Amino acid sequence: MSKKENIKKCAIALFQQYGYKSVTADMIVNEAKVSKGLLFFHYKNMEGLISEIMLDWLIPKWELMIALDLKNLPLKKCIEKIFELSKTGLDKQKSQYKLYFSIMLNEPNFISKLNLENNEVYKKMLACLHSIYESRNVENAESELILFNTTLMGAEMSYCIHTQEVGDYFYKTTKEMFLKRYELDTTN
Amino acid sequence: MSKKENIKKCAIALFQQYGYKSVTADMIVNEAKVSKGLLFFHYKNMEGLISEIMLDWLIPKWELMIALDLKNLPLKKCIEKIFELSKTGLDKQKSQYKLYFSIMLNEPNFISKLNLENNEVYKKMLACLHSIYESRNVENAESELILFNTTLMGAEMSYCIHTQEVGDYFYKTTKEMFLKRYELDTTN
Repeated sequence: MSKKENIKKCAIALFQQYGYKSVTADMIVNEAKVSKGLLFFHYKNMEGLISEIMLDWLIPKWELMIALDLKNLPLKKCIEKIFELSKTGLDKQKSQYKLYFSIMLNEPNFISKLNLENNEVYKKMLACLHSIYESRNVENAESELILFNTTLMGAEMSYCIHTQEVGDYFYKTTKEMFLKRYELDTTN
Repeated sequence: MSKKENIKKCAIALFQQYGYKSVTADMIVNEAKVSKGLLFFHYKNMEGLISEIMLDWLIPKWELMIALDLKNLPLKKCIEKIFELSKTGLDKQKSQYKLYFSIMLNEPNFISKLNLENNEVYKKMLACLHSIYESRNVENAESELILFNTTLMGAEMSYCIHTQEVGDYFYKTTKEMFLKRYELDTTN
């Protein structure tokens, strides 16, 4: 593992253990056994480090969503597949999701710091999401997408803050009830 | 203000400034200018302090929901009123919401630590929520309530993590799109 990768790995472990607001540059360089100079050579500042950690996690998630290849599926099936993809991620990486939400809540305008407007994978994933509704001539396509995003985030949060059993149940119920919205869909 | 109230006030300010995981008992007693003995005389431990801070905030919210008196309103109107009540809270207490979500994400099984099964206001609020669906003979009443809770939490999260303008827009859109679910309701 390169020293840069090792810094990142140590930072993630510390963030997950202490909450990301408690972790200082000193703690990271102690854990990674590197100089502070090297930390700030690889990452402009703590924000840069956190952004890179989050993008390392988000980009593969977006790539998986693009790879679902939803073009020719009925609307209901598209939504179902995204819920399922997200659930697989939650089951495998619950603590990463918690870290992600914690950062979003505590770091003002964190999303804008990710410079997503220049991120090709993000733009492709977003186009993919938009096309689910737009290519099927859904009324209020943009608003439907917002509702879907909000509901999915609520389900993910609900999974993260409850015990495994309750979280699983709430996620599954939310998915099934939301899918009813598209039961009458005959556009595809 | 009593010393106990002052401890709580100082703790809230520190939690909001540094993130609740970074705040130690020492920081709180320094800020409140009291002894550690007094802190732990009033609160068994840090968890007890955090629970009380959260309940101080949650109980008035639940009381407002109970006071909405939704019994005789159409289902759609009930849901709309709860969305609006929550939005008023968000506008006035965004940082409290953020703190609440952060604690839920980072403190394992925090909900169980609140001992809600013995909390009369909580039980009344829950009965009130259940009755919205049950008294109107909605199919899958329990699942509808889960979907509503998840969607509302998603909308609150979305409001908290975005800029004011985007957060307002996402909240409003989610509310309006979700209400369409009950447009055909004629049970009341």
